[in-house]
Amino acid sequence: MANKKCIVLLSGGLDSATALYYANNLGYECFCLIFDYAQRHKKEIRSAVRVAKRVECGYKVIKLDLTHKGSALLDKKLKLPEHHNADMEKAIPSTYVPARNTVFLSIALCYAEIFKAQAIFIGANVVDYSGYPDCRPEFFDAFKKVAVLGTKSGATGKKIRIIAPLIDLNKAEIIKLGWKLKVPYGLTWSCYKGGNTPCGECDSCFYRRKGFKEAGLIDPLMVKN
Amino acid sequence: MANKKCIVLLSGGLDSATALYYANNLGYECFCLIFDYAQRHKKEIRSAVRVAKRVECGYKVIKLDLTHKGSALLDKKLKLPEHHNADMEKAIPSTYVPARNTVFLSIALCYAEIFKAQAIFIGANVVDYSGYPDCRPEFFDAFKKVAVLGTKSGATGKKIRIIAPLIDLNKAEIIKLGWKLKVPYGLTWSCYKGGNTPCGECDSCFYRRKGFKEAGLIDPLMVKN
Repeated sequence: MANKKCIVLLSGGLDSATALYYANNLGYECFCLIFDYAQRHKKEIRSAVRVAKRVECGYKVIKLDLTHKGSALLDKKLKLPEHHNADMEKAIPSTYVPARNTVFLSIALCYAEIFKAQAIFIGANVVDYSGYPDCRPEFFDAFKKVAVLGTKSGATGKKIRIIAPLIDLNKAEIIKLGWKLKVPYGLTWSCYKGGNTPCGECDSCFYRRKGFKEAGLIDPLMVKN
Repeated sequence: MANKKCIVLLSGGLDSATALYYANNLGYECFCLIFDYAQRHKKEIRSAVRVAKRVECGYKVIKLDLTHKGSALLDKKLKLPEHHNADMEKAIPSTYVPARNTVFLSIALCYAEIFKAQAIFIGANVVDYSGYPDCRPEFFDAFKKVAVLGTKSGATGKKIRIIAPLIDLNKAEIIKLGWKLKVPYGLTWSCYKGGNTPCGECDSCFYRRKGFKEAGLIDPLMVKN
């Protein structure tokens, strides 16, 4: 148990918090990477830090000096999508951030080698499909090959696993799983906006509300607010 | 010509400078990414900036807030290898930086999407094999798949190409190619150490000297010094 280490990509949202508790529950010593990449608001970073502290695991907030244009998540001039258009689910939303998961996984891979971790956990899932290309299983399969071929660990037979434990779960299933694992969902933040209370209108709020409703549970974040 | 754009990974060394001139010569509008990732010395960053300015292309120095341990290139407590041991060529040297090219290519992929660039150029090569796993063709092939599957560009049929034009060239061939393209090799810096003059002892100095000798050319950096 003591030597089983992993890197967890932690965003402050409920999926990655669930992935962290899942890894922790498997007996991994977790180290969380939290990215500060000029998001619209810092609230999700603060949420991620709170979740990592609750688990009492190591974490690092990594500043990524990237000039992002063309993503509504980063560019305050672009309008955030509201969840109304059913067709939108098939398209790639404007909240897409160029190559985000590739960048995050790459840096996680670097840290995994530094810490001699055996695995990287990421909370991505596709059932309530967000439309992000870098949340698809085929993307993760491709990245797994990069992790083997592009590292000293991989080249010397000590493969670093990329684990997306929630990949096949819908939001309600993720919440039910996390509930059992005692994920402090009241500390997480899903809303694309950074106000005092979730906006309730954005895609992310829509899926969170739908998930809790289908799971038959009450979102502690909504009780708190 | 005007709309042909690329991202170039520029390190300050002679390979990436040659890759930049190669891309520029093909008619690409180049944008260089130069990484400040806590290298042993800043000299290579200054060299890279000088080379980018000479080409009069856009560039950005990206600070990467990574805690690197275990690489002699980053950790001043570790001894740099001198080029004496033939066996070393088969092993992965201590100058290996965890997942470096994966991280650099990922961020380049992000920028390629932002700038709507069609290609990423990287100066990696394997003939004078450095032993780095992330300089091998099979690594680049794996990353090409990630670039297609993990991006909006790839998912919508606008593939971003990963081009390693020097992959099959030895150091002498790279230098001969760059000489024709008028690469200002006097501005480049290969030595792992950051003194006023190249140390002449490290792996990188060894291959540079050997390359110029085999190419029958005089290294302008050595004349200058």
